[in-house]
Amino acid sequence: MRAVKLVSPGKMELQEVERPVPGPDEVLVRIAGAGLCHSDLHVLHMGEEWPFFGGTVGHEGSGRVESWGADVDGFAEGDAVLVSVVWACGHCRACVEGRDNACEVNGSRHMFPTTPGLGPDGAMADYMVTKARYLDRIGDLDPVAAAPLADAGVTPMHAINSARSRLTPGSTAVVIAVGGLGHMGLQILKATTGARIIAVDNDESKLAIAREHGADLVLKSDADTAQRILDETNGYGADVVFDFVGVQPTVDLATKVVSPEGALRFVGLGGGTFTFGADSNTAVLPWGVNVQRSYGGTRADQLEVIALAQQGKIAVETVTYPLADFQRAFDDLEAGKVPGRAILVP
Amino acid sequence: MRAVKLVSPGKMELQEVERPVPGPDEVLVRIAGAGLCHSDLHVLHMGEEWPFFGGTVGHEGSGRVESWGADVDGFAEGDAVLVSVVWACGHCRACVEGRDNACEVNGSRHMFPTTPGLGPDGAMADYMVTKARYLDRIGDLDPVAAAPLADAGVTPMHAINSARSRLTPGSTAVVIAVGGLGHMGLQILKATTGARIIAVDNDESKLAIAREHGADLVLKSDADTAQRILDETNGYGADVVFDFVGVQPTVDLATKVVSPEGALRFVGLGGGTFTFGADSNTAVLPWGVNVQRSYGGTRADQLEVIALAQQGKIAVETVTYPLADFQRAFDDLEAGKVPGRAILVP
Amino acid sequence: MRAVKLVSPGKMELQEVERPVPGPDEVLVRIAGAGLCHSDLHVLHMGEEWPFFGGTVGHEGSGRVESWGADVDGFAEGDAVLVSVVWACGHCRACVEGRDNACEVNGSRHMFPTTPGLGPDGAMADYMVTKARYLDRIGDLDPVAAAPLADAGVTPMHAINSARSRLTPGSTAVVIAVGGLGHMGLQILKATTGARIIAVDNDESKLAIAREHGADLVLKSDADTAQRILDETNGYGADVVFDFVGVQPTVDLATKVVSPEGALRFVGLGGGTFTFGADSNTAVLPWGVNVQRSYGGTRADQLEVIALAQQGKIAVETVTYPLADFQRAFDDLEAGKVPGRAILVP
Amino acid sequence: MRAVKLVSPGKMELQEVERPVPGPDEVLVRIAGAGLCHSDLHVLHMGEEWPFFGGTVGHEGSGRVESWGADVDGFAEGDAVLVSVVWACGHCRACVEGRDNACEVNGSRHMFPTTPGLGPDGAMADYMVTKARYLDRIGDLDPVAAAPLADAGVTPMHAINSARSRLTPGSTAVVIAVGGLGHMGLQILKATTGARIIAVDNDESKLAIAREHGADLVLKSDADTAQRILDETNGYGADVVFDFVGVQPTVDLATKVVSPEGALRFVGLGGGTFTFGADSNTAVLPWGVNVQRSYGGTRADQLEVIALAQQGKIAVETVTYPLADFQRAFDDLEAGKVPGRAILVP
Repeated sequence: MRAVKLVSPGKMELQEVERPVPGPDEVLVRIAGAGLCHSDLHVLHMGEEWPFFGGTVGHEGSGRVESWGADVDGFAEGDAVLVSVVWACGHCRACVEGRDNACEVNGSRHMFPTTPGLGPDGAMADYMVTKARYLDRIGDLDPVAAAPLADAGVTPMHAINSARSRLTPGSTAVVIAVGGLGHMGLQILKATTGARIIAVDNDESKLAIAREHGADLVLKSDADTAQRILDETNGYGADVVFDFVGVQPTVDLATKVVSPEGALRFVGLGGGTFTFGADSNTAVLPWGVNVQRSYGGTRADQLEVIALAQQGKIAVETVTYPLADFQRAFDDLEAGKVPGRAILVP
Repeated sequence: MRAVKLVSPGKMELQEVERPVPGPDEVLVRIAGAGLCHSDLHVLHMGEEWPFFGGTVGHEGSGRVESWGADVDGFAEGDAVLVSVVWACGHCRACVEGRDNACEVNGSRHMFPTTPGLGPDGAMADYMVTKARYLDRIGDLDPVAAAPLADAGVTPMHAINSARSRLTPGSTAVVIAVGGLGHMGLQILKATTGARIIAVDNDESKLAIAREHGADLVLKSDADTAQRILDETNGYGADVVFDFVGVQPTVDLATKVVSPEGALRFVGLGGGTFTFGADSNTAVLPWGVNVQRSYGGTRADQLEVIALAQQGKIAVETVTYPLADFQRAFDDLEAGKVPGRAILVP
Repeated sequence: MRAVKLVSPGKMELQEVERPVPGPDEVLVRIAGAGLCHSDLHVLHMGEEWPFFGGTVGHEGSGRVESWGADVDGFAEGDAVLVSVVWACGHCRACVEGRDNACEVNGSRHMFPTTPGLGPDGAMADYMVTKARYLDRIGDLDPVAAAPLADAGVTPMHAINSARSRLTPGSTAVVIAVGGLGHMGLQILKATTGARIIAVDNDESKLAIAREHGADLVLKSDADTAQRILDETNGYGADVVFDFVGVQPTVDLATKVVSPEGALRFVGLGGGTFTFGADSNTAVLPWGVNVQRSYGGTRADQLEVIALAQQGKIAVETVTYPLADFQRAFDDLEAGKVPGRAILVP
Repeated sequence: MRAVKLVSPGKMELQEVERPVPGPDEVLVRIAGAGLCHSDLHVLHMGEEWPFFGGTVGHEGSGRVESWGADVDGFAEGDAVLVSVVWACGHCRACVEGRDNACEVNGSRHMFPTTPGLGPDGAMADYMVTKARYLDRIGDLDPVAAAPLADAGVTPMHAINSARSRLTPGSTAVVIAVGGLGHMGLQILKATTGARIIAVDNDESKLAIAREHGADLVLKSDADTAQRILDETNGYGADVVFDFVGVQPTVDLATKVVSPEGALRFVGLGGGTFTFGADSNTAVLPWGVNVQRSYGGTRADQLEVIALAQQGKIAVETVTYPLADFQRAFDDLEAGKVPGRAILVP
């Protein structure tokens, strides 16, 4: 079978490799779609220190069950499945509390729990093996389009769930940047909360998407955006602010519009920063703001995302490429030419 | 009656003033104790911009009911009461959700809701008036010793309540700095959670207090403290870290020992800072940490603190001064000579 | 002014009375609409033991601010307002925790906190006085149509909020009876959760309403309904079941379709019962079911309902009657001839 | 090796059987202690319908790791472990949400998830096999005394966790019956909440245990108990009431002393009942009470119990019997002669 391998810094190859054989507790999945993520680019640009050269890339994988090991039951050939991004141990304290993205056994203080495509062979291949328990059924969903749910769906869901208690009807949520993650976040907010949603972007086409997905107020970002949001919230600020890119201008905006005792969630990895001060003299934020840089999500988050997709309440905008055109897909992603999410189709 | 007035930058005076008369919905409280807080020093050092010169100082007040207005009922003369620090409106969205410390009507994006002693006349006086609804009964508690509960008790309680879901048995909580706020925080953690508590300080007498109040592990802070805490938590970090002073060395320690998806609470106002980054390259913290600079608390927090004090589960260490010796008390506080909390007694 | 008075068992009269004058902390509201509730019929049918003969009826009131007392600020003449059903004290433990419907001061073990129209003069009149803090602004909402939000909106909201943690995407909620409360419950579930909603009724017109409001599955109740719901939930049962009438057949259905560790909420007052057993031999329910008879709601619930109405996400179906036709309105209600909610308009 | 087998209705035998060999994902545990539970008596008294005759009894098992299968890692010979009572699938929606006691895959609407000793061979034997993921390490805890934690510890913990949001300082919790489950519940409440605890029993020795474990008020049950509790709670009732036996008199008491919008948890299986009514005429309870019959618990509950035991905050009172004396142990249990928990020691 074919697999996209990261062979050395900056270099990927489509190689012919042996089709893997599922172990006793594993399933062989015939890949239908494998999503490209900005974090794949991040890894591509790493140097010799990357410990996993030779591995198959791709952590957003979806497909159909082909075969399985002796200890697996409950699957039928052809079942459509989504591969979880988090390969957690399943029985440590974090896991049994439903916080498996913080699994201490398969992760550590500095490393997110094991992720396919970033260590174990990933989804950019004709087939992939995974433990049966890392698969979630997706029923009638198209497994090509479903692939990005594993990350582009789960990551915003996790951020939103972490602030859900504040997203009551009457609250205001600000969605900064309506791109890949942001347009999913907006749909999830709309589908699962009664919060009023203010969407901000600097790109008219993104603002059109925000309107289409039901944002209550859509603002093109400019020098007055912060003041506009404060005006809309009695000068007090928004209950919850999501920054879905995390570049310096969006981080600056986010800190200016969140309310005291509000919640601020950074989902994007754009490298913006602010100074967090322990008192009111050094503080950029109003007092009491609850801040979290959200990263990945849990199995429960994934099941929620799948359920919303099955009900037609959320959908990822996608562009497909044949597996063999992987290089073109990555080049397009890097060049910012991909609207929504790029998917390799074997 | 006598009242300590802040008359100009850096200058307080004990003045003879008219005893206030309670309005229809107000109560006149004969002050038993008025606590001194570091934030009083902060105000004392402010310049001409301070808008409340001429006001009576003191936001930690406790005493006995003397008389009341026509619309008040439910009080008897001599009832021991604690004056709330937060004078919230009681009916805005924040208030009815039990988040009255974020009252939008009596507070704003930049100002905490109205606080006695920082605007309205406060507790460093023979008598004080307050709306009846800003009083909580304290039953048989000594109203002198109870005064600091209003802030030194409520503030740690609010920080702990904001992280309570993570303070399960099996979790580890780190208490950095066992001073005025920290020794209250330690007692509250002990009384209301099954978390394992690691207490850190650089002062032997504080560590003795930590041991006495049941900390499970007591560490004198030095170059190895962060590593010691990581060793105690499988290299993963503590579930919840409370920094009760917020100076640079404690902020640094706090960021080094909190776990991924853990909770970090800054309660002290020591001016330490760290850079909060939206991605893993710029981040000081592990991924997913939930951070909050906690400030004040709610009426519900205050009732919880009173209940614990009534059960003998928490107590503030106090030193009393006659009201007339207010200047000496402030000087001692500034000089760091007050163990626990200083209280003026009229 | 005119007021509908309950003068003796079964007897109401429209009387000419003095227009009340607001006290220092009160507001005079010019009533726009006063909703009729089944609990009004309940009181009408009570005997001589009812302690409040002579009082003005009506606990669902909405209107415009006419004037106010000396201590009130923040209102302008003509402001549209909704009168809260719960007149709680605002500062007991329940109140400051945001559970004001369980206020211990204005309520008791056997009595719900003070309710206008059931003690103090209510809304079926040209004018009504209330403390300023029992009013919530409703902005541009039509105050006639808004009146029922105070009860027919708040009551389902409270029941739903009490089970919200279980209403995740992927969960199934069953709405039994799509009448006055049920059609509000359905809209609230749709607006604020990603749960799949199964609606059940025995009346085709109600099922049409359920379809229109977006129920995912609509079932006409018959002998197979319980099995149909179990079939839809893998034989396991629904995560949350709301019974919005509480008559014997609906109570029976509810107990048969809730899952183990699921949540069951009774909102209607239909008099149905079941035997709750402390062990598996005597139990009607599967193990672990969390059951609550929900009644009224909190101020926070009311603000949430108003916010959803303002966003156009929920609306009460209403029929209006002139105030003078109060008797006909009550007769129609008793005869089951009112689709949605009847409203008296002065 | 020896194993206690349930061979036919009412009949258990100590048989010599083959020592089981752990499969690839299994561990062989050398049993140190196997607790006896009232539910074992319940099964013993079942008729021919019981589907598991021939199986080894015992669902409270603790011991030391002897050997393991090829796919297991992380254990060392001699590690002290506790066997979970709930053998859940680990990846269904309930499991990944941390509600594994409601696992839909290994359980059903009418059956609790798979439990050792009630289907698979249990702990009353020299050795037992279990999947590695059903084991929790207990560190330095004595594995004989730890055995009952799996049920007698976990079951009260689950009930308490389900009402934890109401167990704030200032709240009152009532513990009815200070027996096997109740004395654990009391210790857990004391260790993890600031609630005031009222303990009720009709046995002086149990009341002595309640005092020793720090109950704030201890009441011998008689005709005045309900009134005493109401007097202690301003006539309003207790925030949370735990009935740890569930016989008719305790069920009656529980319903009389819980407050409106309070929480009522039945943990014992004593067969008492009450009529749950959908309206105030048929209702035994005050309005708004949240009721749950709690049964078993989750893996997270088990980790919490182990952590408290390791910190010395909870301990089960135990009586040991040699494995060969199993019949005497069961006879004593049935006769009510076992103070605390009986444990078979191989």
